[in-house]
Amino acid sequence: MSANDRALSYLDDLEPGQRFVGSARLRVDEERIKSFAAEFDPQPFHLDDEAARATLFRGLAASGWHTAAVTMRLLVSHDFPLAGGIIGAGFDELRWPLPVRPGDTLRVECEVLEVRPSKSRPEQGLIKLRTTTFNQHDQPVQISVGNLVVPRRAP
Amino acid sequence: MSANDRALSYLDDLEPGQRFVGSARLRVDEERIKSFAAEFDPQPFHLDDEAARATLFRGLAASGWHTAAVTMRLLVSHDFPLAGGIIGAGFDELRWPLPVRPGDTLRVECEVLEVRPSKSRPEQGLIKLRTTTFNQHDQPVQISVGNLVVPRRAP
Repeated sequence: MSANDRALSYLDDLEPGQRFVGSARLRVDEERIKSFAAEFDPQPFHLDDEAARATLFRGLAASGWHTAAVTMRLLVSHDFPLAGGIIGAGFDELRWPLPVRPGDTLRVECEVLEVRPSKSRPEQGLIKLRTTTFNQHDQPVQISVGNLVVPRRAP
Repeated sequence: MSANDRALSYLDDLEPGQRFVGSARLRVDEERIKSFAAEFDPQPFHLDDEAARATLFRGLAASGWHTAAVTMRLLVSHDFPLAGGIIGAGFDELRWPLPVRPGDTLRVECEVLEVRPSKSRPEQGLIKLRTTTFNQHDQPVQISVGNLVVPRRAP
């Protein structure tokens, strides 16, 4: 299934190993890194390049929550046409192997790891999805494993 | 240790069971729920109250990433005075037991679960921290278990 296949997927259409690739790309600008951080994560390494050089990040880096939010935007906009929308019940893993730098352009790839019909709610189920966010050098900047609520097709 | 104790904590100062409570509070407005969603998570249940009523959320709800970002703001601003800042290496768990609704006021509580000096980098270590975000009814709206990088005191 590619990003161009816009038919909505129900739980019944999904199986482990399915991958969603060919996502759109979003550029993360220095100004938005700083303004996002000013509102939500006002620490020197997200606000000021000079101050960031003396930190673990060795230069301005986007807040991980900014990277997570941009990843969500890429999923919602283009890449993963789930019936019912993209509704995360929670994550088993979320990490940022490399910082996102000013001017980086991000894209995502997803793989279905598990598909589980709900026992108590026959109209829906859960999938476990690994989502990897890459920068323009094809380096992973975020890896998550999340559980998403997906409706079943009406019988 | 309370939120009023502003001395910076190094790895050496932390131990399992320590709790950080008494956080500041932040109100999440309907307009910011919608504008955050328009940029990062443009789905009907985060954008429009009418449309949201027909969904799993049964009314307008903040994006989980918005809740996560507000939680980060509460941690950074007031509650958890770590030397070196709050630097998440990744999360073992992140979930949203209840939606955040327009006008909800959030606060956080943290508990240190583990403290681990680094073997390869003697100047730092990792702590595992559970952070719970509560609404004004003391209901948890986000629970995370994250691993944070924390510097050690110079010997």
